[in-house]
Amino acid sequence: MIPHDSLFGPDNLPYGVFSAGGSAPRVGVRVGDSVVDLAAALGDDVFAAPTLNPFMAQGYDRWVAVRSRITDLVRGELPADVVHAVDDVRMHLPFEVADYVDFYASEHHASNVGRLFRPGAEPLLPNWKHLPVGYHGRAGTVVVSGTGIVRPSGQRKSPSEPAPVFGPSTRLDIEAELGFVVGTGTPPNTPIRPDDFARHVFGVVLVNDWSARDIQAWEYVPLGPNLGKSFATSISPWVVPVLALEGARVPLPGQADPEPLPYLRESASWGLDVELVVRWNGEEVSRPPYREMYWSPAQMLAHLTINGASARTGDLFASGTVSGAAKGERGSFLELAWGGAEPLTVGGEARTFLLDGDEVTITASAPGPNGTRIGFGEVTGRVLPSV
Amino acid sequence: MIPHDSLFGPDNLPYGVFSAGGSAPRVGVRVGDSVVDLAAALGDDVFAAPTLNPFMAQGYDRWVAVRSRITDLVRGELPADVVHAVDDVRMHLPFEVADYVDFYASEHHASNVGRLFRPGAEPLLPNWKHLPVGYHGRAGTVVVSGTGIVRPSGQRKSPSEPAPVFGPSTRLDIEAELGFVVGTGTPPNTPIRPDDFARHVFGVVLVNDWSARDIQAWEYVPLGPNLGKSFATSISPWVVPVLALEGARVPLPGQADPEPLPYLRESASWGLDVELVVRWNGEEVSRPPYREMYWSPAQMLAHLTINGASARTGDLFASGTVSGAAKGERGSFLELAWGGAEPLTVGGEARTFLLDGDEVTITASAPGPNGTRIGFGEVTGRVLPSV
Repeated sequence: MIPHDSLFGPDNLPYGVFSAGGSAPRVGVRVGDSVVDLAAALGDDVFAAPTLNPFMAQGYDRWVAVRSRITDLVRGELPADVVHAVDDVRMHLPFEVADYVDFYASEHHASNVGRLFRPGAEPLLPNWKHLPVGYHGRAGTVVVSGTGIVRPSGQRKSPSEPAPVFGPSTRLDIEAELGFVVGTGTPPNTPIRPDDFARHVFGVVLVNDWSARDIQAWEYVPLGPNLGKSFATSISPWVVPVLALEGARVPLPGQADPEPLPYLRESASWGLDVELVVRWNGEEVSRPPYREMYWSPAQMLAHLTINGASARTGDLFASGTVSGAAKGERGSFLELAWGGAEPLTVGGEARTFLLDGDEVTITASAPGPNGTRIGFGEVTGRVLPSV
Repeated sequence: MIPHDSLFGPDNLPYGVFSAGGSAPRVGVRVGDSVVDLAAALGDDVFAAPTLNPFMAQGYDRWVAVRSRITDLVRGELPADVVHAVDDVRMHLPFEVADYVDFYASEHHASNVGRLFRPGAEPLLPNWKHLPVGYHGRAGTVVVSGTGIVRPSGQRKSPSEPAPVFGPSTRLDIEAELGFVVGTGTPPNTPIRPDDFARHVFGVVLVNDWSARDIQAWEYVPLGPNLGKSFATSISPWVVPVLALEGARVPLPGQADPEPLPYLRESASWGLDVELVVRWNGEEVSRPPYREMYWSPAQMLAHLTINGASARTGDLFASGTVSGAAKGERGSFLELAWGGAEPLTVGGEARTFLLDGDEVTITASAPGPNGTRIGFGEVTGRVLPSV
């Protein structure tokens, strides 16, 4: 019995990898507050794997067929031995990450960061409205929600210091993002068109791209962020199928001036009306609106492959920080506290960046059919002291 | 019988993955002009795998022990059925690439690029002598030597144009580099000290980091290179063991001013006296000297993990373009032809960037014991027309 207002009703059916009672990790689907063991329920060994990769690699037609079977299953009465309470299972990283790319697709975020990192200069760089700017991150440090985040150490140098100093980051931040998981990739020299997005991208997760702003500011010229980001990137355990998000599609807010080059044009936009919520030690500090993103995820994937680069099952590409126009819609503390100059009040105290022991939780939901909502679960992490 | 002047004598013994006569790819070691089938010769199934990853993951003590056994083997008479002529086998990508990071460790290269990309400004940025600058590249498009390189398409914009145009790159270039393969990684929050380099890094390959300079110049601010590099990175099929390179170790040329922070200091330097040779359609155009690199590979790996990032078996990190002080020692055509302004003569013609049909081959050798030399084989690739 699924409560009518559940974010995990029969129109959602996100996939994850769980273990229960010490058994090996395997694929499950979330329904209400339960997890259905798919290998047991469907009698299909592809779901006995410890990652979603084998199922994702089977391709779009299988994704549709399995979703239809699961929909039938959850309408009926499930045998008790294939169902676990979500509180009784442990969730794992849902897929093996092949390559990880992080974009920078929010105009509000890119403008805010430009103002903070390059004061006095034009906040948006000349290429920004012509292509979805992005860079490769470290796939090996993508971790599942709940993993503790040890404060990273590294070099930092303020403009007033003569030389860099080494130590734990003093400007540890978050970035609230959506991540898109490639189910079936493409061989070399076969770019993916934006209109083929749903045939290649299996699902969507929440991403917290933890960022050490002091390390990043010193290292990032000219080759981009590296150590300021590579220590950890957290993702939510539930992969919401792209098939569940038809009702969330919205037009993009811009792109009339300049018009994108033909390889980036979509017949029907993959803008998504997903509303994120950021909580800092349980207190809501922001509601970033994904519908305000400038570039769609279909454009991101088209851009990633237009130079002939192949894509693989398990490739993860993230949107970059989701920030809306309003102050309470910004997806990083760098922006919310304006580089430290305008502290937030959290738990009755003035706060700028993360302290040891702080916990950040990002949740999200989107419109489903018939007035329902589709939930994304959560991505959470607590800051641990540097080692 | 190995010729005395062979670059693949008993002091080298590089590993690769080969197939012969339609059989499945497996691990071999090169001796002279032969490939020894290790699964057959040693009766050990770890070498029947299609990549070096399982063997590399066994760790340093096993690398030493197996090298010792192979040394004994090749001193004796090998059964004919475990030996193949190198001309009769096909070579494959020698390992599965986990994360790929490219550094920027040549002072001459970074200075040349700074002069070309940011004319009038200080060529080396303020962070360059304090940390090995690097960025993550696309692991999924690392290919083995001999793979054809399709000319990438993408956006480019010259300063005089009002908007970007789309099309095949007109400034396709190479970067001659060394690549270092992690055999045993490190868990999160356990940085690798420079002095532990040889316990973690299994071997060395040649790298050609193909680069579309026009795409790169337009896209690279502020997050670094992406599509200008991600279409293909070629590596040599033979992985030269770090254990074979003791005789090639040399002091680094600089690092007195500024002195590196403690986490980057080595007791004995991993500077390497490797001499690269770049041939363009068979004609030698450059001899980049690795011994002039500013940062050592041990410092690169220490930097990569100092923020708590884990490292995995199969992680590949490359040096960045190897360029010496002299013009004939530069490792990219961008530098050799000075951004197109000073063409080279190749095949009797004035040349700047790559044309369809061009072939580039990089080879290298280093001192071994007793006056011998250690060869790295080659990384080669031919440019194919855009699709």
